[in-house]
Amino acid sequence: MVKSEKIEVLDTTLRDGAQANGISFSLQDKLGILRALDELGIDFIEAGNPGSNPKDMEFFNLAKEQKLEHSKLLAFGSTKKKKIKASEDNQIKSLLDAKTEGVVIFGKAWDLHVREVLQVSLEENLNMIQETVSFLKDNGRFVIFDAEHFFDGWVANADYSLSALKIALDAGADRIVLCDTNGGTFPDTIAKASAEALKALGVPDKMGIHTHNDIDMASANTLAAVNLGFRHIQGTLAGFGERCGNACLASLIPSLELKLKFTCLPKGKLERISSLTRKIAEISNIVLSDNMPYIGSSAFSHKAGMHADGVLKITESFEHVDPALVGNDRHILMSEVVGRSAITERINKIDPTITKEHPVTLTLIKKLKKLEAEGWAFEGADASFDLFIRRELGRYESLFKIEAYRVVSEHPTGETISCSHAWVKVLVDGQYEIAAAEGDGPVNAMDNALRRALQHFFPELEQMRLSDYKVRVIDGNAATAAKVRVLINSSDGERNWMTVGVSEDIIEASRAALTDSIEYKLIGDFQRKFKAYL
Amino acid sequence: MVKSEKIEVLDTTLRDGAQANGISFSLQDKLGILRALDELGIDFIEAGNPGSNPKDMEFFNLAKEQKLEHSKLLAFGSTKKKKIKASEDNQIKSLLDAKTEGVVIFGKAWDLHVREVLQVSLEENLNMIQETVSFLKDNGRFVIFDAEHFFDGWVANADYSLSALKIALDAGADRIVLCDTNGGTFPDTIAKASAEALKALGVPDKMGIHTHNDIDMASANTLAAVNLGFRHIQGTLAGFGERCGNACLASLIPSLELKLKFTCLPKGKLERISSLTRKIAEISNIVLSDNMPYIGSSAFSHKAGMHADGVLKITESFEHVDPALVGNDRHILMSEVVGRSAITERINKIDPTITKEHPVTLTLIKKLKKLEAEGWAFEGADASFDLFIRRELGRYESLFKIEAYRVVSEHPTGETISCSHAWVKVLVDGQYEIAAAEGDGPVNAMDNALRRALQHFFPELEQMRLSDYKVRVIDGNAATAAKVRVLINSSDGERNWMTVGVSEDIIEASRAALTDSIEYKLIGDFQRKFKAYL
Repeated sequence: MVKSEKIEVLDTTLRDGAQANGISFSLQDKLGILRALDELGIDFIEAGNPGSNPKDMEFFNLAKEQKLEHSKLLAFGSTKKKKIKASEDNQIKSLLDAKTEGVVIFGKAWDLHVREVLQVSLEENLNMIQETVSFLKDNGRFVIFDAEHFFDGWVANADYSLSALKIALDAGADRIVLCDTNGGTFPDTIAKASAEALKALGVPDKMGIHTHNDIDMASANTLAAVNLGFRHIQGTLAGFGERCGNACLASLIPSLELKLKFTCLPKGKLERISSLTRKIAEISNIVLSDNMPYIGSSAFSHKAGMHADGVLKITESFEHVDPALVGNDRHILMSEVVGRSAITERINKIDPTITKEHPVTLTLIKKLKKLEAEGWAFEGADASFDLFIRRELGRYESLFKIEAYRVVSEHPTGETISCSHAWVKVLVDGQYEIAAAEGDGPVNAMDNALRRALQHFFPELEQMRLSDYKVRVIDGNAATAAKVRVLINSSDGERNWMTVGVSEDIIEASRAALTDSIEYKLIGDFQRKFKAYL
Repeated sequence: MVKSEKIEVLDTTLRDGAQANGISFSLQDKLGILRALDELGIDFIEAGNPGSNPKDMEFFNLAKEQKLEHSKLLAFGSTKKKKIKASEDNQIKSLLDAKTEGVVIFGKAWDLHVREVLQVSLEENLNMIQETVSFLKDNGRFVIFDAEHFFDGWVANADYSLSALKIALDAGADRIVLCDTNGGTFPDTIAKASAEALKALGVPDKMGIHTHNDIDMASANTLAAVNLGFRHIQGTLAGFGERCGNACLASLIPSLELKLKFTCLPKGKLERISSLTRKIAEISNIVLSDNMPYIGSSAFSHKAGMHADGVLKITESFEHVDPALVGNDRHILMSEVVGRSAITERINKIDPTITKEHPVTLTLIKKLKKLEAEGWAFEGADASFDLFIRRELGRYESLFKIEAYRVVSEHPTGETISCSHAWVKVLVDGQYEIAAAEGDGPVNAMDNALRRALQHFFPELEQMRLSDYKVRVIDGNAATAAKVRVLINSSDGERNWMTVGVSEDIIEASRAALTDSIEYKLIGDFQRKFKAYL
């Protein structure tokens, strides 16, 4: 193995990840994920099929305006329909309309699928691959060919599955990717089939692997192909994807870089992988398991007396790599995860004069640790984190104050259903306003009343809406008096932001997150409105 | 490979699983997990170290009274201390006091650990292994030797790591288990080292493998050893364990049985693996990822139009195995997961005369599906499920009624903190009682008020306590008006039970779960008190 040899990484969170149960990306979510993947330095970002719906085409139009530092955006589609020319197939045309540098085309490599699902002849399918790839190459695109179900196809009819690869290569495809679409293949079969494909095509640098985790082998299967010389891997950063998910890049990239000495990311980016994976999970509204390899909050935590003791004596005794290399930490706390440089970077967005060594940076880190020990978590809750920094820097003035509130949930005598209502009294610029509202449950009632009171002063709150609301119980052992963490996602159509609140009282935690959300909106609007005077 | 060859399975949820961050088992939790593992037909259940604390010894005393159908319970400990006889080592003596058929002994197989962590000579460590194993064999125990850090040890000093195995085998150990304790080893190294160990010892039937998932290779590593002839595997059913967890048996067992044609569980048990793994997760208060291989609720769900279409045309086109074989389902709903036989079994606990074909069984399944579509989930919430069946069978009489309640969370003018209080009016046997209470948040206030009112009639509620309270938002997209599912764990010192409530209003969902919990307690007490008359 050559040291520092490059492995090309393709992330398909925006396409295969979007197919996962429980995931539903808004346009803003997609742009946020695009930025996070580019920030990490992923080579290729595969997004949706521009022909499948107008929203996806809108994404490609907006994505063009993003200045990506490292990543190349790819549109995704299938081979052309039978019996029409590629140039006349609307789906293929929309791939060109997306105006990306490259496209990913999937084609059938399993004879069963060709006959039973696609319902064309084996020959016709090969023609469809050939014509589609040729047409896109003629139009100047970088073409990645995904051989869907390659491994199942190889078991059933090896010759046919290999001929699908060959025809794509001959038609000019820049990458040939072997897919374990159903995710049920073991590493030994992956290795045998991949070796045969490699021998038949003779182009290791153009070979890629795409695996799914249905039998918990996605990482091992990817590695089996890399060991044979494949230099292009596909997966999703957090492992999201159809059914059991795709190969998890946040597990694979650290193993490839730290243990096998390949280069996957630009220099210095590996230590961002923990925080950026968590960011994508927050945007996706998916709770990552604490025990995820490398990046999980428990991945380097030690509980057993003996293990903790061993780690103190000599770290490698119970740690396979240094957690700092992937931006994770033995002590779990977020402040240490992020590190001083990352926090300084965030501070500098608000005040560019503050350095890493400035006393306020240290005070801020100390307070952050204290808040985290109390159950706060700012991963993803960027808006609350910004407000927290502003408050510490003294660059903050409260725009409104909740003077008092009262939320009532009741089930009156004689009634068959319960109801919730709330009143809130706010103080803005010396002026009081009181409003009441009903809601589905106490939090919804309070949200409604608070906005009603504030809209009197800030009509722009009309555009703002809560797009998501999450509750997590932090310490399950204290039963109904356990602390809860509330995460709120807000949007005004243009921007998307997330805020957090923590309390033993769910109403109070929600109040904190709602207040931050509204303040963040108002400060942003104010800054844009009075840009000339700042 | 011989068809239906047996692979012995050891589950260490109660030992390695208990070390996981976020897990803290009560005595009742441990007994519940023990029963679930036995129900599945796991060969060996490794529990705690009886010498480490009195609670673990109490567990072994209580566990003896459980009539296990299939599993053998094992105590877990380390090799004896240096410079004293095994017979005089308190930790070793407590292993005998646990009175289990077998014991697991871990010993050091990495020279670094011997020198730096244990701080004894290499020779002395081998003596400690030899004497400990011999002593336990002399006392009639089945002895499993876990060679801790075997693979890291093999890389550093292969001869020494192998000599640790040999001395344990020569001392009479019944199983020799190679451990990847830090979880950082790749399958190729596992295969090389295991092959060498196999060659040195020559006893494939006695060889076992124990892996951790720190680089996402636990399953692949286990398989690498099985492919060489190892016939004993260790892991935890749901994958719980230190840091990134142990090898996940719920992923491995289905692969070994369905794809590689080994026998791991007694006949007919594989289809229980989904529900029993979920049960253990509920007891452990850990949320399983939807995308877990085989058993996750999304493991066989299809979202992409093309995939769903393909599955309808021919199931194997997008499914690597039939989900029914592991008790899982393409349609996610719990009712279909459980199946009619399992539901009839549950009904028969309340009324033994009802058959699988009885109309009430069908009505019940129909209602269950409807509830699940509304967001109810009865996995783990056995008590609510029992009450649901009782209500449908007409074998239920409400013991109390909440006539009215009012929960108030407020932040009064001039105050700096919020507070919550509640009043509840109950009707018991024609008599009204009203009580009020404060609490940390609205749910806690309501819980306090409700118990206060009911204790007037049912003083036995004094012993009952809520041991856990969980909230999950079911549909994140409706923001603060999303539905929430509340799960409550209760205990009265003798029994442990779980109940569920669902509503758009968190107070109402909590009310439902609390009511079920109290009713379940009262019905159980009543049945025990008046057993003679029933």
